[in-house]
Amino acid sequence: MLDALRHDAALVEAELDRLLPLPAPGPRRRLQEAVRYAVLGGGKRLRPFLLLQTARLFGVPPARALRAAAAIEMLHCYSLVHDDLPAMDDSSLRRGKPTVHRAFDEATAILVGDALLTHAFAVLADPQTHPDAELRCQLVAGLAGAGGIGGMIGGQAIDLADERKELDLEGIQELQSFKTGALIVEACRAGARLGEASQEEIEAVEEFGSALGLAFQIVDDLLDAEGDPTAVGKPVGQDAAADKATFVGRLGTEAARERAAALIEAAKEALATFGGRAALLQRTADFVLTRQV
Amino acid sequence: MLDALRHDAALVEAELDRLLPLPAPGPRRRLQEAVRYAVLGGGKRLRPFLLLQTARLFGVPPARALRAAAAIEMLHCYSLVHDDLPAMDDSSLRRGKPTVHRAFDEATAILVGDALLTHAFAVLADPQTHPDAELRCQLVAGLAGAGGIGGMIGGQAIDLADERKELDLEGIQELQSFKTGALIVEACRAGARLGEASQEEIEAVEEFGSALGLAFQIVDDLLDAEGDPTAVGKPVGQDAAADKATFVGRLGTEAARERAAALIEAAKEALATFGGRAALLQRTADFVLTRQV
Repeated sequence: MLDALRHDAALVEAELDRLLPLPAPGPRRRLQEAVRYAVLGGGKRLRPFLLLQTARLFGVPPARALRAAAAIEMLHCYSLVHDDLPAMDDSSLRRGKPTVHRAFDEATAILVGDALLTHAFAVLADPQTHPDAELRCQLVAGLAGAGGIGGMIGGQAIDLADERKELDLEGIQELQSFKTGALIVEACRAGARLGEASQEEIEAVEEFGSALGLAFQIVDDLLDAEGDPTAVGKPVGQDAAADKATFVGRLGTEAARERAAALIEAAKEALATFGGRAALLQRTADFVLTRQV
Repeated sequence: MLDALRHDAALVEAELDRLLPLPAPGPRRRLQEAVRYAVLGGGKRLRPFLLLQTARLFGVPPARALRAAAAIEMLHCYSLVHDDLPAMDDSSLRRGKPTVHRAFDEATAILVGDALLTHAFAVLADPQTHPDAELRCQLVAGLAGAGGIGGMIGGQAIDLADERKELDLEGIQELQSFKTGALIVEACRAGARLGEASQEEIEAVEEFGSALGLAFQIVDDLLDAEGDPTAVGKPVGQDAAADKATFVGRLGTEAARERAAALIEAAKEALATFGGRAALLQRTADFVLTRQV
């Protein structure tokens, strides 16, 4: 993995640990233990990394973007916990560990997701996140938009629908732009906002995020089709088993890989206007293409 | 029911309808239909009413508090949908209709709750809710606090815990202050904030909300023990069937009713400082005590 990704993941881990302290012994403590189980000690932390690095692109040091980065990771983790539930994808393994409803129980997993979703907004609205309240409201609205029916939740609804199996390439692309793309774009947008970027600059990082998000998902499909379950940290071959239409299924392995490579080129191109300052984000794009996890 | 409660409920219904429009046909439309099923056409709308009426106490007309009122009702409705799930309370009836997971399916019910929770924050963060961003951030933080592990979700965790059956009176009171009290207090606090109330005034309405919320829950226990399921809109006798410790179980019917009456007196007393302006909120407190629904 990229050294920078690993470095920022450690910062995000520490911030999440700080933002999710354990209450006094009792049922609420057990719930928070499950919250911490769901969030700490795993994951690439790609979304917070993108937020931190787009913020840095506009001169904001990681320390001043960490709370927003942790909030977006909380939202991402909530979605994993709920998506893994028996009524949804019914997954038993996540990030190499039993899923929350397996390690605890189903009611706890529902509450863990609810708590993470709720806390993400508490963190963003707090003055410690940024002194400008207008900007904090934009972060709240942005995360809610990316996480709502017009984003991630809408994508999950499409993913679970009967029509899912018959999606054509365009339909799969739309599904993924909702389900994973919206939050990746928001990570980039939030970083740019923290850096008080211009509208033009925000649009450039949105374009980067959009192409990167789609490439990320195509690589996910490739890993599911061909990857090593130990490295990936979750079972593979699930899409084929569920007879789901995927980029790989529709395009074939080779064309899917080519499509992902072209998207990564487009993502990097979107950052050309920032010159050498964007080098790390461009290397991140390369990593997304070649990742094995 | 109070005429004023009915009147404001209609305003809130119209606002919720407006804030939850249907998208184009497809899986996302079906999900939003389920969201609307969960939210529209039922409920006392007590929390938004309290928000609207505390705002009015400080001179804010309902039209300028309706978005915040709708947001708090969205949060309340999400909690009902998730609490009703098979892994939680496994309820089949709510507000006289099949619960969301019965009318649709379990995955949809999970997503409906997630979507309502998410959208509540989107609504609050939007400049249309109030021109002052600092105030909007306070509303977001307030709702997240009241809805989180330090409030409603924490209460639900206690409610589901093994220790639940053995709670003493103090334990039941703590459970309810988390599970229902926090959000009722927040409704009052948010109204006062919209009215730019002083810290002293905010504390007075918080005291009102806190006593009212506890009385509300005791009456809920009484209705569960003695109420008419057709009027209540959900099955009764569930606490006894689940062997749950309740105010009625610990105190007996008569002492529970006395306790509720004393709390309602305390709630009304907390508003004495506002004189005749608080008459409607005081009648609301009386309604909470005598309600049959």
